[in-house]
Amino acid sequence: MALIVQKYGGTSVGDLERIRNVANNVAKVHSSGNDVVVVLSAMAGVTDQLIGMARKITSTPHRRELDVLLATGEQTTVALLCMTLESMGCPATSLLGFQAEIVTDRAFGRARIVEIHADRIKDLLAQRKIVAVAGFQGRAVNGDITTLGRGGSDTSAVALAAALKADVCEIYTDVDGVYTTDPNICSNARKLDRISYDEMLEMASLGAKVLQIRSVEFAKKYNVPVHVRSSFKEEKGTMVVEEDKDMERLVVSGITYSRDEARITVTKVPDRPGIAAKIFNTIGDAGIVVDMIIQNTRKGGLTDITFTVPKTDYQAALAIQQQLAKEIGAEQVLGDDDIAKVSVVGVGMRSHAGVAARTFTALAKENINIMMISTSEIKISCVIDQKYTELAVRILHDAFSLEKV
Amino acid sequence: MALIVQKYGGTSVGDLERIRNVANNVAKVHSSGNDVVVVLSAMAGVTDQLIGMARKITSTPHRRELDVLLATGEQTTVALLCMTLESMGCPATSLLGFQAEIVTDRAFGRARIVEIHADRIKDLLAQRKIVAVAGFQGRAVNGDITTLGRGGSDTSAVALAAALKADVCEIYTDVDGVYTTDPNICSNARKLDRISYDEMLEMASLGAKVLQIRSVEFAKKYNVPVHVRSSFKEEKGTMVVEEDKDMERLVVSGITYSRDEARITVTKVPDRPGIAAKIFNTIGDAGIVVDMIIQNTRKGGLTDITFTVPKTDYQAALAIQQQLAKEIGAEQVLGDDDIAKVSVVGVGMRSHAGVAARTFTALAKENINIMMISTSEIKISCVIDQKYTELAVRILHDAFSLEKV
Repeated sequence: MALIVQKYGGTSVGDLERIRNVANNVAKVHSSGNDVVVVLSAMAGVTDQLIGMARKITSTPHRRELDVLLATGEQTTVALLCMTLESMGCPATSLLGFQAEIVTDRAFGRARIVEIHADRIKDLLAQRKIVAVAGFQGRAVNGDITTLGRGGSDTSAVALAAALKADVCEIYTDVDGVYTTDPNICSNARKLDRISYDEMLEMASLGAKVLQIRSVEFAKKYNVPVHVRSSFKEEKGTMVVEEDKDMERLVVSGITYSRDEARITVTKVPDRPGIAAKIFNTIGDAGIVVDMIIQNTRKGGLTDITFTVPKTDYQAALAIQQQLAKEIGAEQVLGDDDIAKVSVVGVGMRSHAGVAARTFTALAKENINIMMISTSEIKISCVIDQKYTELAVRILHDAFSLEKV
Repeated sequence: MALIVQKYGGTSVGDLERIRNVANNVAKVHSSGNDVVVVLSAMAGVTDQLIGMARKITSTPHRRELDVLLATGEQTTVALLCMTLESMGCPATSLLGFQAEIVTDRAFGRARIVEIHADRIKDLLAQRKIVAVAGFQGRAVNGDITTLGRGGSDTSAVALAAALKADVCEIYTDVDGVYTTDPNICSNARKLDRISYDEMLEMASLGAKVLQIRSVEFAKKYNVPVHVRSSFKEEKGTMVVEEDKDMERLVVSGITYSRDEARITVTKVPDRPGIAAKIFNTIGDAGIVVDMIIQNTRKGGLTDITFTVPKTDYQAALAIQQQLAKEIGAEQVLGDDDIAKVSVVGVGMRSHAGVAARTFTALAKENINIMMISTSEIKISCVIDQKYTELAVRILHDAFSLEKV
């Protein structure tokens, strides 16, 4: 008998019928003798509706109050699930963020979990109750309601699994696992049985939307086995676990892509100490997160600096840089939001040479120009013209024979 | 400069535009130098929608979880109001029941306030913040969310006013005050400037829907001046205050009516000690509240017992009595749900004789038969055929010249 944390996303609790399906699933696992903690998202679309309502009041809703508003979404689903379970004769108790004592900092809208006092949950489990915890929300030390940001329910679930030392954290979602790449683009994409935390982290930060990045960081830190699986199918999904020898035998685990970034180049920047710092401090002060950065030195003490930013911040970043270029005496600011980033990910890279060469060769064969390259120990990312995205993903999937186990 | 608690009902916060009107009103009072605590209901209709959703799951939703669900209604409105105020440059902080430390018992759905720890509210007021408290909700000692029952936001407001020793508790509603009777029935009904707690209590329990009964009890106990007024008009409404000499000069303050009750008669009940107790214990055990009771002794050790119950419990009460009649050897059980109760209310009755006589005479003149009578120190209630309701109200309003100040 195990202690299982299950998380169901917005689609899985999208209406009362689906909530009943979740209840049936939970009840089955519980009646087999397992202890079950369920973490729920808001019904699909509800969080966006609430944000829309707030935006009708003001384009910049007060962050603390927005969190109070958004927290109603998960409050609704946990109450409905527990009613459904109770009506089936399964004792169930809902806990909101403050009741589950998920303590966070006060960064409204993107709060980080500081600690979880799991005593009440443990008490309820000891009474053989199913505990349904509202995902995405916590409370600050002073009792204020906070939310954890997009996909925060994943983090709630993994953090609870860590605090409870659960045997597994099951993430039920609308896909049936983690794939070698997006099956919508590449028909021979293959579901992975297992993937390491590090690979999952890279995949998540590179655009795979299966798990929130922070939840994977949490899972890695506390070594929580995460099982990504479908709400609508019985079959097993993908286990996200600690890296082992087997995984290293594979050179590459997956290909990801993202079309959410834009590229900015500042040309002929005077190559003096502190200039790069100035460029990126100004961007950072505006709350814009920079991803890739490349610097090419020209002749004559001048340099070109290129970097990528989220597409939503593109116009703001352009404006900032155009202002700054004048101040620092750079030539001009070029921008391009018609780009894509394709990435090759695998812990096997650590021990296998030639992955970069194979990547570049494969893209070159199809005449796909690489605009920027960035690498880590376990990934290679290339920025390319956006129109080649799908083609590049398929080429790389083939190049590393990912359709084969 | 005063400390003012304002409560706005569901119609007053029915949409974003109305919430903006509330914000404007609150901001005006606040900027004149007053400290303001605002208590809000859920948007009109929302609580019923949520109950409807729960009922789709089961006809008897789990009470604890229903309260978790219902509490989202007021959570939404306080967040929206504070966003609106903040967007206008007025610092505002929302507090939910648990954050405002409105501590209740654990009677989900009809919890009673046990105490309020108002320190956080006082701190926020000291910082010149507007504090918006979610009405209708509290927390049990163990942190469970509770709700106070229909109209509970009135009670939240008055209880907060008592805890904060506020100068006044303003109840903003869709009527502009307390009237001598229902203006929809009686065109010369007159708005009262003042009414005593006791009269308001009688009026509330007799069918006037302006204030929740419990809120009036609270106001009386802690001597909180309550100002009932319109959200949509500037003019003053009705002050509900402690009784004074002036009030006694008026014989009668108002006429109320209710069509929410039904009458049950058990005939030829053996007149033995314990029989009445048995009848009313059985009803009470089923959670049905009995209002008026009349016993007429017949000859031969037999008695007829007549009582009224809420119309919603009529069928259940009938079934219970039919079962019981056999056990105790009564003759038969008669029922009538086509009745109305009209009542004459006024603290002046204590010192003025002849009110009952004048009431009965007025009704008799129009040949309205009185089926049951019940009296208290400050009210006389008559049960009549429902079809005479409006007529009886108008007759009694005239009989006591209530149209005149």
